Amino acid sequence: MLQLIGFDGDDTLWHSEGYYREANDAFAAIVGRYVDLGDRRVHDTMLATEQRNLQLFGYGAKGMALSMVETAIALSDSRISAADIHRIVELGKSVLQHPVELLPGIREAVEAVAAHHDVVLITKGDLFHQEKKVAQSGLADLFRRIEIVSEKNAATYRRVLGEFALQPAQFAMVGNSLRSDIEPVVRLGGWGVHLPYHVTWAHELENGLGDDEPRVLTVDAPAAIPAAVERLRALAAAAQGGH
Amino acid sequence: MLQLIGFDGDDTLWHSEGYYREANDAFAAIVGRYVDLGDRRVHDTMLATEQRNLQLFGYGAKGMALSMVETAIALSDSRISAADIHRIVELGKSVLQHPVELLPGIREAVEAVAAHHDVVLITKGDLFHQEKKVAQSGLADLFRRIEIVSEKNAATYRRVLGEFALQPAQFAMVGNSLRSDIEPVVRLGGWGVHLPYHVTWAHELENGLGDDEPRVLTVDAPAAIPAAVERLRALAAAAQGGH
Repeated sequence: MLQLIGFDGDDTLWHSEGYYREANDAFAAIVGRYVDLGDRRVHDTMLATEQRNLQLFGYGAKGMALSMVETAIALSDSRISAADIHRIVELGKSVLQHPVELLPGIREAVEAVAAHHDVVLITKGDLFHQEKKVAQSGLADLFRRIEIVSEKNAATYRRVLGEFALQPAQFAMVGNSLRSDIEPVVRLGGWGVHLPYHVTWAHELENGLGDDEPRVLTVDAPAAIPAAVERLRALAAAAQGGH
Repeated sequence: MLQLIGFDGDDTLWHSEGYYREANDAFAAIVGRYVDLGDRRVHDTMLATEQRNLQLFGYGAKGMALSMVETAIALSDSRISAADIHRIVELGKSVLQHPVELLPGIREAVEAVAAHHDVVLITKGDLFHQEKKVAQSGLADLFRRIEIVSEKNAATYRRVLGEFALQPAQFAMVGNSLRSDIEPVVRLGGWGVHLPYHVTWAHELENGLGDDEPRVLTVDAPAAIPAAVERLRALAAAAQGGH
């Protein structure tokens, strides 16, 4: 039986990626004063730098800011001015300071799911920034546990499930990222509710799920989450009955 | 009765501050090419920038690197070259890549304490970097729980104790920082074993403890920790007997 429902934070409970996009566009405009590569090339180089630095920085706006500084220096052949580098650092700070705006209807959706299941928040990224966002969201009290993790892979979900003494088949994850929220959970034998967000960081796009994964339901708005969870509960009960 | 013993990570289990010091000295040398302020002034300005940014960045080497970039631009009146800013970013990376070297005798000390008490690791800073250090330390298996926290204050220790359903009087913290490891625990009614490290970040020096705090024992080496914990256990038992 389905017991525990995990919710992702960024772009599932509250808006996030848009702020990173804005910072990246402003960054491309600054670099554009030094080289005529086009925004696409700048974004691609930045993504490559970020992915290379992930193993050293992890996720989050501070690592992004440092990768931006590095990328700008490399692309400009060290011609970029200190004043422009300062503007880039400020872009990183602006992402850390953005207001926490909930997705419309998400509070009601979490409340409805929490009425029938244990719910946990499992969010990836910078500990300090995520804690601030959780606090500002006003949703913390709805969750039995808040897990801020450095990576969302099978090992992470296994550990969280271990803390609740549950099997993967008793767990569903709700989130916008197929790569981070859905695929590792489904691979373990769990369930997923995919709530696509209108923009997705290129890094999060890669995943190995098929189009008709029977353990995943896709919804188009937070209001549809409770019904999707109920549908998964029925599927999970049927799957167990079949053993 | 004393039940749970917490250990700090940086500069208690493994060396850390020395790497930050080296980075800060190299930083002062870079800035010294632009302004003749003396290393002391550079360090003081850097500390002020870091403390101002703490509420946005939290602790850790990525925030330090961004604060260094900011400080260098400010102190040089934006004259610093992109190549030198790149060197500063590399200083931040070097701190993130330093090897994890245990303090001599610390493994044996944790093992001896763990033979009689539950032990937890409570370490502050960047989630990603701390996880890597914990993994590289080879000590993870000794601890019942590993808590990576963004700040070590009364609320943090209260939350950890809540997870173990313990009162502060049943808890002692072992660490090098009076401000982060000892004072908040003692204020709550717990106990402390202070293991001073030979260098301490200026930010960690501020604390409000008196010199003869009866709930705190100071030791001069990891090998002395188990006996200090036993002494605190006797004190805790006597204090309880007195109620």
